[in-house]
Amino acid sequence: MRQEFGVGVIGAGIVGGGVVCELLGRHASLVDRTGVTLSLKQVADIDTTVADRLAIEPALVTNDARTLIKNPEVEIVVELIGGEQPAKDLILYALSKGKHVVTANKLLVAKHTSELCQAAEKHGVELRFEASVCGGVPILKALREGLAANRIDRVLGIVNGTANYILTQMTHANKSYKEALKDAQENGFAEADPSLDVEGYDSAHKLKIIASLAFSTDIDLDEIYVEGITGITSEDARYASELGYVIKLLAIARRLDGELDLRVHPTLVQQQFLLADVSNEYNAVYIEGDVAGTTMYYGKGAGRAPTTSAVLSDLIDVAKDIQFGSVGRMKPFVWGTKMPVRKIETVENRYYMRCTTVDKPGVLGEICTILGRNNISIASVIQKAVAEHVENPVPIVLMTHTCSEGDVQRAMQQIDALDSVRDKTNIIRVE
Amino acid sequence: MRQEFGVGVIGAGIVGGGVVCELLGRHASLVDRTGVTLSLKQVADIDTTVADRLAIEPALVTNDARTLIKNPEVEIVVELIGGEQPAKDLILYALSKGKHVVTANKLLVAKHTSELCQAAEKHGVELRFEASVCGGVPILKALREGLAANRIDRVLGIVNGTANYILTQMTHANKSYKEALKDAQENGFAEADPSLDVEGYDSAHKLKIIASLAFSTDIDLDEIYVEGITGITSEDARYASELGYVIKLLAIARRLDGELDLRVHPTLVQQQFLLADVSNEYNAVYIEGDVAGTTMYYGKGAGRAPTTSAVLSDLIDVAKDIQFGSVGRMKPFVWGTKMPVRKIETVENRYYMRCTTVDKPGVLGEICTILGRNNISIASVIQKAVAEHVENPVPIVLMTHTCSEGDVQRAMQQIDALDSVRDKTNIIRVE
Repeated sequence: MRQEFGVGVIGAGIVGGGVVCELLGRHASLVDRTGVTLSLKQVADIDTTVADRLAIEPALVTNDARTLIKNPEVEIVVELIGGEQPAKDLILYALSKGKHVVTANKLLVAKHTSELCQAAEKHGVELRFEASVCGGVPILKALREGLAANRIDRVLGIVNGTANYILTQMTHANKSYKEALKDAQENGFAEADPSLDVEGYDSAHKLKIIASLAFSTDIDLDEIYVEGITGITSEDARYASELGYVIKLLAIARRLDGELDLRVHPTLVQQQFLLADVSNEYNAVYIEGDVAGTTMYYGKGAGRAPTTSAVLSDLIDVAKDIQFGSVGRMKPFVWGTKMPVRKIETVENRYYMRCTTVDKPGVLGEICTILGRNNISIASVIQKAVAEHVENPVPIVLMTHTCSEGDVQRAMQQIDALDSVRDKTNIIRVE
Repeated sequence: MRQEFGVGVIGAGIVGGGVVCELLGRHASLVDRTGVTLSLKQVADIDTTVADRLAIEPALVTNDARTLIKNPEVEIVVELIGGEQPAKDLILYALSKGKHVVTANKLLVAKHTSELCQAAEKHGVELRFEASVCGGVPILKALREGLAANRIDRVLGIVNGTANYILTQMTHANKSYKEALKDAQENGFAEADPSLDVEGYDSAHKLKIIASLAFSTDIDLDEIYVEGITGITSEDARYASELGYVIKLLAIARRLDGELDLRVHPTLVQQQFLLADVSNEYNAVYIEGDVAGTTMYYGKGAGRAPTTSAVLSDLIDVAKDIQFGSVGRMKPFVWGTKMPVRKIETVENRYYMRCTTVDKPGVLGEICTILGRNNISIASVIQKAVAEHVENPVPIVLMTHTCSEGDVQRAMQQIDALDSVRDKTNIIRVE
């Protein structure tokens, strides 16, 4: 039985460099444990210093990804350049050339799920992307294989390490959003332009991949409601703590009367809930299956080493499939009917609301009246005594019972239109 | 491509009944998601009421397991009778007849790992046992496939739901060991004879399976140091809380200078550590890999539904292997060289010690002198003021810095021999 399989790596940056080093290092021979040896045949990168930087033979390096794809020694192509293009064209080209593909590109897999999967199926090759969600945690394998017998009912994920790092620092180190972001950038947990992460889109990409697998349905990315963490203040983090909660950017997917509820937004989770303890750059996915019950998967979601771990496990899986002639054994996605997605307006939640008011008689009454008129029932209120100074904005924090998003949106418009209310009222959903 | 695969279930008790019902219910056709249909061909049980109880065709039931194994329609045999015999003989018989086997029998797999695996390999069939460890959590798949590229350095597991339920009740509901055990029995989390669970042997069986996979080494069960929770008192649980810890029955495996450290014992874990929040009947396994870093897997470890989930995912995996002709794709275990196991006496830990002393001058001094003579350095001491009543036993609780087990054992003998010390000193290791 053949044991050695040729691998080509496109993109030798942080993660790509890690994969190359592992393939050349001790992991070149995983043969004892796995029965396969992954053999690096070529590296493609436009950076001319790659050979020096990674201390590899210059002959191994090309600056043309298509040359690597066409290299007959390369059986499995690892795409690690990220972004939409040219990654998409290169992957499609590789698949069309009969090459198996392993990628960590969540944006690409999320945006072009069906096109990529159909291309892989058409050409009879494997397409794997375990590294695209939760780095070192084999969450896609768990969903696709380990929980295969389950009807999945709900998934809650902390799937963006940058946002989780920032929120953790705001909660535990009492930092402002700006300070926490700066800290994340200095520690390598946030990019110079962090918008994909802090605005929730990266989480939405991962939610699309997770939910497609969990519910065997195709999902349009723009059907996912997305709200980032840029509006969260350290004041919110403090009030949340006081109320027994922690603020997390959650990716939420659940079955709701034949529809799918798909959302990414900052969420108050109870301090005793396991997800509340997932701190800093760590990720976790909490899954409710109808047979297995509740399971949770935790680990580092990004970065060189965890991503490398996932890429290597995909490579081993693909190599085993080549070895045993079982290519196609696990389809990347399987879709039944397309499930309708619930409109956010009709979703029900409990809500945290922080109104910024002028300290004068009757303000709380006005706010409560508006909430009542919109069918929103109040569970608790925090209004701290402040020095009597009418001009000082005074925060009023309310927790509601379960009510509909539509009612809340209407109430917020009316509250924010009050003379006695300064600034936009901040609402955070409670899970 | 063939989609339907014949399954026979031996043992239709709690779990077996669950598997039978799922196979006959909606999960009979998993074909959309997985491409396979699992078709129940026969059930073997000595209970003559099985057909009635499970509302299945009497013709499906036999009271002779060997008849089921010989049934040519049965391709995959599910063994769910548990215990060592006749389960072992039946599995070996099934393997010898070319039948694939799925089992939840941790005791059997742990005791006869190599014999069973060699038999499966010899006859060219699959042997799967995901359900034997952590029920619904696909932890063996994670170790064998998801983390395949990693050198595993450390595993910490809460792998026995009964013990964890009891310790949780002692910690959070302030119950005595006896009360907590009774509660566990009344709620179905402990058997009438709970000894395998509370004495740590069940955890040792699971640790053997986990560690064999994690370290690719064969392990003798009796090389694992095992200590149960029967000596833990509610007083210990209270002191642990006061010191910022929670007591958990941990299954521990780690690499230590080319040796393996394998232990099951009650352990103090810090309240902030994720494993501290794994409560009641839940299980969790915390894994340190050299590439993926820290990952953790959490869920229900036993019971009808979670075990059924794992059995079904194994069945699907085996069916896919038959379908794609890839039987043998993943070996049940792969062993390299046999790693030596570290003797407990040479392992180093921090320790919690609770001495029961007579309240008279000089006792603490005597204890501290003995500890010092044995190279044990004290990190903190709790001695509460009690009413002056010389005959009253007074607890003294000490936390040590890191010291060797051998030194601690020697010191304990000397301390327990003191006139001023009543009862055996209780020690709990700290992780």
